[in-house]
Amino acid sequence: CALHSSCALRDADPLPQASFFPPNDATMLPPGSFSDKVAFVTGGGTGLGRAMTQGLSQLGATCVIASRKLEVLQKTAEEITAQTGNKVFPVACDVRDPAAVAQCLDQMEKLTGLPDVVINNAAGNFVSPSEKLSPNGWKTIVDIVLNGTAFVTLELGKRLIRQDKGASFLAITTIYAESGSGFVVPSASAKAGVEALYKSLAAEWGRYGLRFNIIQPGPIRTKGAFSRLDPTGAFEKSMIGRIPVGRLGTPNEIKNLALYMSSHYATWMSGAVVRLDGGEYVSMAGEFNDLRKVSKQQWDLIEAMIRQTKGS
Amino acid sequence: CALHSSCALRDADPLPQASFFPPNDATMLPPGSFSDKVAFVTGGGTGLGRAMTQGLSQLGATCVIASRKLEVLQKTAEEITAQTGNKVFPVACDVRDPAAVAQCLDQMEKLTGLPDVVINNAAGNFVSPSEKLSPNGWKTIVDIVLNGTAFVTLELGKRLIRQDKGASFLAITTIYAESGSGFVVPSASAKAGVEALYKSLAAEWGRYGLRFNIIQPGPIRTKGAFSRLDPTGAFEKSMIGRIPVGRLGTPNEIKNLALYMSSHYATWMSGAVVRLDGGEYVSMAGEFNDLRKVSKQQWDLIEAMIRQTKGS
Amino acid sequence: CALHSSCALRDADPLPQASFFPPNDATMLPPGSFSDKVAFVTGGGTGLGRAMTQGLSQLGATCVIASRKLEVLQKTAEEITAQTGNKVFPVACDVRDPAAVAQCLDQMEKLTGLPDVVINNAAGNFVSPSEKLSPNGWKTIVDIVLNGTAFVTLELGKRLIRQDKGASFLAITTIYAESGSGFVVPSASAKAGVEALYKSLAAEWGRYGLRFNIIQPGPIRTKGAFSRLDPTGAFEKSMIGRIPVGRLGTPNEIKNLALYMSSHYATWMSGAVVRLDGGEYVSMAGEFNDLRKVSKQQWDLIEAMIRQTKGS
Amino acid sequence: CALHSSCALRDADPLPQASFFPPNDATMLPPGSFSDKVAFVTGGGTGLGRAMTQGLSQLGATCVIASRKLEVLQKTAEEITAQTGNKVFPVACDVRDPAAVAQCLDQMEKLTGLPDVVINNAAGNFVSPSEKLSPNGWKTIVDIVLNGTAFVTLELGKRLIRQDKGASFLAITTIYAESGSGFVVPSASAKAGVEALYKSLAAEWGRYGLRFNIIQPGPIRTKGAFSRLDPTGAFEKSMIGRIPVGRLGTPNEIKNLALYMSSHYATWMSGAVVRLDGGEYVSMAGEFNDLRKVSKQQWDLIEAMIRQTKGS
Ligand SMILES: NC(=O)c1ccc[n+]([C@@H]2O[C@H](COP(=O)([O-])OP(=O)(O)OC[C@H]3O[C@@H](n4cnc5c(N)ncnc54)[C@H](OP(=O)(O)O)[C@@H]3O)[C@@H](O)[C@H]2O)c1
Ligand SMILES: NC(=O)c1ccc[n+]([C@@H]2O[C@H](COP(=O)([O-])OP(=O)(O)OC[C@H]3O[C@@H](n4cnc5c(N)ncnc54)[C@H](OP(=O)(O)O)[C@@H]3O)[C@@H](O)[C@H]2O)c1
Ligand SMILES: NC(=O)c1ccc[n+]([C@@H]2O[C@H](COP(=O)([O-])OP(=O)(O)OC[C@H]3O[C@@H](n4cnc5c(N)ncnc54)[C@H](OP(=O)(O)O)[C@@H]3O)[C@@H](O)[C@H]2O)c1
Ligand SMILES: NC(=O)c1ccc[n+]([C@@H]2O[C@H](COP(=O)([O-])OP(=O)(O)OC[C@H]3O[C@@H](n4cnc5c(N)ncnc54)[C@H](OP(=O)(O)O)[C@@H]3O)[C@@H](O)[C@H]2O)c1
Repeated sequence: CALHSSCALRDADPLPQASFFPPNDATMLPPGSFSDKVAFVTGGGTGLGRAMTQGLSQLGATCVIASRKLEVLQKTAEEITAQTGNKVFPVACDVRDPAAVAQCLDQMEKLTGLPDVVINNAAGNFVSPSEKLSPNGWKTIVDIVLNGTAFVTLELGKRLIRQDKGASFLAITTIYAESGSGFVVPSASAKAGVEALYKSLAAEWGRYGLRFNIIQPGPIRTKGAFSRLDPTGAFEKSMIGRIPVGRLGTPNEIKNLALYMSSHYATWMSGAVVRLDGGEYVSMAGEFNDLRKVSKQQWDLIEAMIRQTKGS
Repeated sequence: CALHSSCALRDADPLPQASFFPPNDATMLPPGSFSDKVAFVTGGGTGLGRAMTQGLSQLGATCVIASRKLEVLQKTAEEITAQTGNKVFPVACDVRDPAAVAQCLDQMEKLTGLPDVVINNAAGNFVSPSEKLSPNGWKTIVDIVLNGTAFVTLELGKRLIRQDKGASFLAITTIYAESGSGFVVPSASAKAGVEALYKSLAAEWGRYGLRFNIIQPGPIRTKGAFSRLDPTGAFEKSMIGRIPVGRLGTPNEIKNLALYMSSHYATWMSGAVVRLDGGEYVSMAGEFNDLRKVSKQQWDLIEAMIRQTKGS
Repeated sequence: CALHSSCALRDADPLPQASFFPPNDATMLPPGSFSDKVAFVTGGGTGLGRAMTQGLSQLGATCVIASRKLEVLQKTAEEITAQTGNKVFPVACDVRDPAAVAQCLDQMEKLTGLPDVVINNAAGNFVSPSEKLSPNGWKTIVDIVLNGTAFVTLELGKRLIRQDKGASFLAITTIYAESGSGFVVPSASAKAGVEALYKSLAAEWGRYGLRFNIIQPGPIRTKGAFSRLDPTGAFEKSMIGRIPVGRLGTPNEIKNLALYMSSHYATWMSGAVVRLDGGEYVSMAGEFNDLRKVSKQQWDLIEAMIRQTKGS
Repeated sequence: CALHSSCALRDADPLPQASFFPPNDATMLPPGSFSDKVAFVTGGGTGLGRAMTQGLSQLGATCVIASRKLEVLQKTAEEITAQTGNKVFPVACDVRDPAAVAQCLDQMEKLTGLPDVVINNAAGNFVSPSEKLSPNGWKTIVDIVLNGTAFVTLELGKRLIRQDKGASFLAITTIYAESGSGFVVPSASAKAGVEALYKSLAAEWGRYGLRFNIIQPGPIRTKGAFSRLDPTGAFEKSMIGRIPVGRLGTPNEIKNLALYMSSHYATWMSGAVVRLDGGEYVSMAGEFNDLRKVSKQQWDLIEAMIRQTKGS
């Protein structure tokens, strides 16, 4: 049954310890933290991008959200503005196309001026055995994730430098950007590229008043991500089983971290890579962590056997 | 003159770009974020430990600060309590001694009960060519930094597990824990050990409601650190010169990050290692970053020469 | 004078300690180590690729070398075959074009069959301030380095899997792939992508008999690299000054490591990333390594000042 | 049954792909590669240390092996000398004791002079839930692994520097030194410390003709390691199941890598960390690698479901 949607494992139960770690959806930073600030969020219409935009708007920022589907952006923009009273501008933009990026930024400059806060969050991904990947499948992901992020970042950087204006850049990558991962190989490669891009510019463009940081989220149930990464829902349970905190993350947890990193409280942060994943990465990577399956009785047995071995 | 204290370079000037990145000393989290919480901070009497304790206390926590010098702790405790109105308890404790650690925690249990927030911040360090290091010099640092952190963390962990109480653990390491660094070798080794300890326990002890994270600070002028790392002040200027943000950090910037990571906003964070260093690490590590010294005119020359090379 | 070619610093002198670390150009593996093996080396006509091809050929491999410039390949192929007596086939191929890659591999299959050893070494790079990078400049490098490596690797992998044939893949990246670096940002990003690609496939495709590893070379004087990275020669001296081994590397040192990693002695190596850089990376990255400039007398002064600070 | 020794899973079968990756036990480097060289190997009487000593001796080195159990060392020394015709000297030494280390090196200086090749291989380890670890249990491991390595390395370094003699240092750590791992926490912390020590000294002591490198072995069945890490044998099968190469490593595979890294072919290698683990680390760490369990039919279903999701 494992992979039939009829036996959907979606919304798999958290582990018992999750009760120690309740998610907090409230916005953490003080009201007005982004007053008079302009924020630009790619992929801001859905999922994590939407949550971050909501937070920025709530704290006073004027926001511009950019992605391909204008209707989705418009709906999100209206809803957030209705909630917060602050303007959210939707701008259609396919980040794979440098000319479209330039046009989108022209539009932004007219609407709001250049941003103080930039969040590169747009991405594409899907699971597939690598032997089934075509050159086109590969390029689609690399074009959105790596080239798209580079086009937006380089073009914005040049304009900010010309206007002698400082800004905070944030990129959303993933916990497998450093380790790599099978079955999502174009995404792993492109996200690793994004991380090197941001670390490089952190070093190079500090002198222009720009800082660059990275968040690596662990698994968070968003429609966009999960429909292409775990369409059957079969994988979710095993993921939760190895997360020390015992549950998936929420978009608002990413929001709070992202807002801190983009704020005037974090002006000394640049070139940082912050993993927010319930501990999943260290749990997977550590060679002996599977021993969590060993019971108390079994430990007693093991201990006795070790004692029997001579020497220390 | 470089190393004579008479020509003290201390308080070296920030770089021009620092004006884009003003430090913000205000406490970021909402008031009451740590109400009804107990916090335990080693080395809480001075420097970064003091700043973190101040922040926790200001936001409602009852604090216990522990280190060797009781008078220093007492003075800090009184000053903070006077400011915030919340109790800060000083407890003398040499973390190198497991029995002293156990006694200190006994005392804490009586005063406040077990903590919700633990910050392992105590450390020792000094600069020296490694060929001048005696076994004792080596051990002094490893005993404080690595064994001390382990004794505090293991003993607290066991007690929390027995009482089925959740908690957040934070360790303060350094940006050279991963890369290593000459001339501070015992500190580099011990801090690397602390990071492995915290990543390991993040994986293993999540099931008990415990999470473990790490902050790697860059250079922040505290009396403790700078008197043993840059006693002549000669090194400070060259450090600032390579920090993209163009200035040293402040204890309050560490405070705000530490408070976020220890708070109920970060319950999904475990096993994370957060660098807060003005970009110094990426700036040092990247092979071509020294090209920041190349002038605009020189770049034109270089570009012309590259164009002359045949092929792409 | 620093950047005028008239005062060329090229062939900058090694440091005194280099006499402890003489380069050994002899081929390390036993004769015949690659008998009956086929090797495929991109960029095999010049620089490091040529040295690795020479080594493989000398030890019995039939080699195919592929890059854009057929004449260069032909000359190299003839010279190596003349030396070693083993066939080297030149095949023109622009790795940016998936169709060209497929054709090149068709040609290879006819000439030699599929390879046992694959070395992805082709790359492009140049130094530039990032604010001068056009989208095209960015894409040129990412297309060669990341997409080119992916097209070659995925297409070869699929063919090997279909034929149930095992192979060793090696990618040549750089010491700034993990840290990033300003002024070579497209290269840093693309090489980071290559590393994630190889680590990902190491995990995923082991079951098909394929292994994947990475070498990160430090600075080695090749015409291709140095004419676009240090055209004036001004940078070389400062690079040598921070390399613990006190000299640049040689192509043959990369050759010996690459041959080991590609050989039957290394069948248990997969997903490994091996830095070969004279220690440059750790020397740059460690925060206090600049203290190597402190003299013995100054150390005595520093030590005395540290002693004066109270406490440990 | 999982943990009863009666159903011993020891000598668990390799995976099918292991036939692509046969271990090669032959010594790789040319005969005489270590003629006139002196090698010092801690823990050289057993397991990996013994295999490395055998290789060094076979290639001409005069060896000194040091650990606590003199009889074990003597037996190994005699057997190897009988095989290779080159002297192997056993010296009793508990590396935890700086005075014992100094005496051991005095003895070595008399027997052979200072070494050209140093391998820090001695270690201790055992599996245990961290809540069962006493301060003594913690210290036992840290004392052997971290302090022991430091005492040997610092003392040898000082003597070599005084005699102006170059040497290669190698430390044997583990694949969980960087990631950490539950259930072997003192070992993880201490090995991380060893890595920082070696990277630090690579940067600092290059100027004295010394280089420092690290091997991180994956699982290799030695009596010492497995009797304390997997005494019931229950864990071995699941380890093999996630190793891309499909089998455990052999001591001789470590030998060949170690000999290369310690040889005159690798004089440009310093500060390097080489993982040799059959790909286990990247396989564990990559978030989606568990999808290797998905069958071909299930992939078809998944692909169809992804296609149905709207948008790219
Ligand atoms: N959710 C998770 O578990 C998770 C884990 C790790 C990392 N992340 C990262 O978090 C970020 C947000 O993901 P999510 O989960 O919120 O998924 P999502 O809702 O699918 O977000 C992806 C966004 O990217 C936009 N986008 C895609 N292609 C684009 C293009 N060519 N040009 C402009 N915009 C484009 C999409 O909008 P349009 O369709 O309108 O273009 C969409 O709004 C991504 O970077 C993802 O890799 C997520
Ligand atoms: N400032 C920086 O630039 C910087 C950079 C990177 C990392 N850090 C880290 O930040 C942390 C705080 O450093 P700091 O700059 O604030 O320096 P600091 O004021 O010297 O703090 C060190 C604290 O550790 C305590 N301590 C030392 N030995 C102890 C022992 N055996 N038992 C208990 N407590 C002990 C000291 O108190 P007693 O003397 O009373 O014992 C002192 O309060 C340290 O972990 C340091 O490594 C600082
Ligand atoms: N030398 C160093 O200091 C150093 C340091 C770190 C890393 N590396 C890496 O080492 C590798 C070799 O560099 P090198 O120093 O030997 O420089 P190189 O001689 O310039 O080698 C680059 C090779 O790539 C080939 N190439 C470039 N574009 C190509 C394309 N589109 N399709 C196919 N082949 C292409 C070139 O041949 P064609 O022009 O004929 O196409 C050339 O043979 C590179 O991956 C480089 O990044 C070198
Ligand atoms: N086998 C694996 O799967 C594996 C995996 C990763 C890493 N490693 C590493 O590989 C190295 C060798 O391990 P192994 O598998 O060969 O196990 P082993 O045979 O148990 O080797 C450990 C050696 O360390 C010596 N030793 C222990 N305590 C000592 C002390 N206080 N002073 C001096 N010598 C001491 C032991 O000799 P005495 O008892 O005579 O003192 C023994 O020869 C270790 O560093 C280990 O961490 C092994």
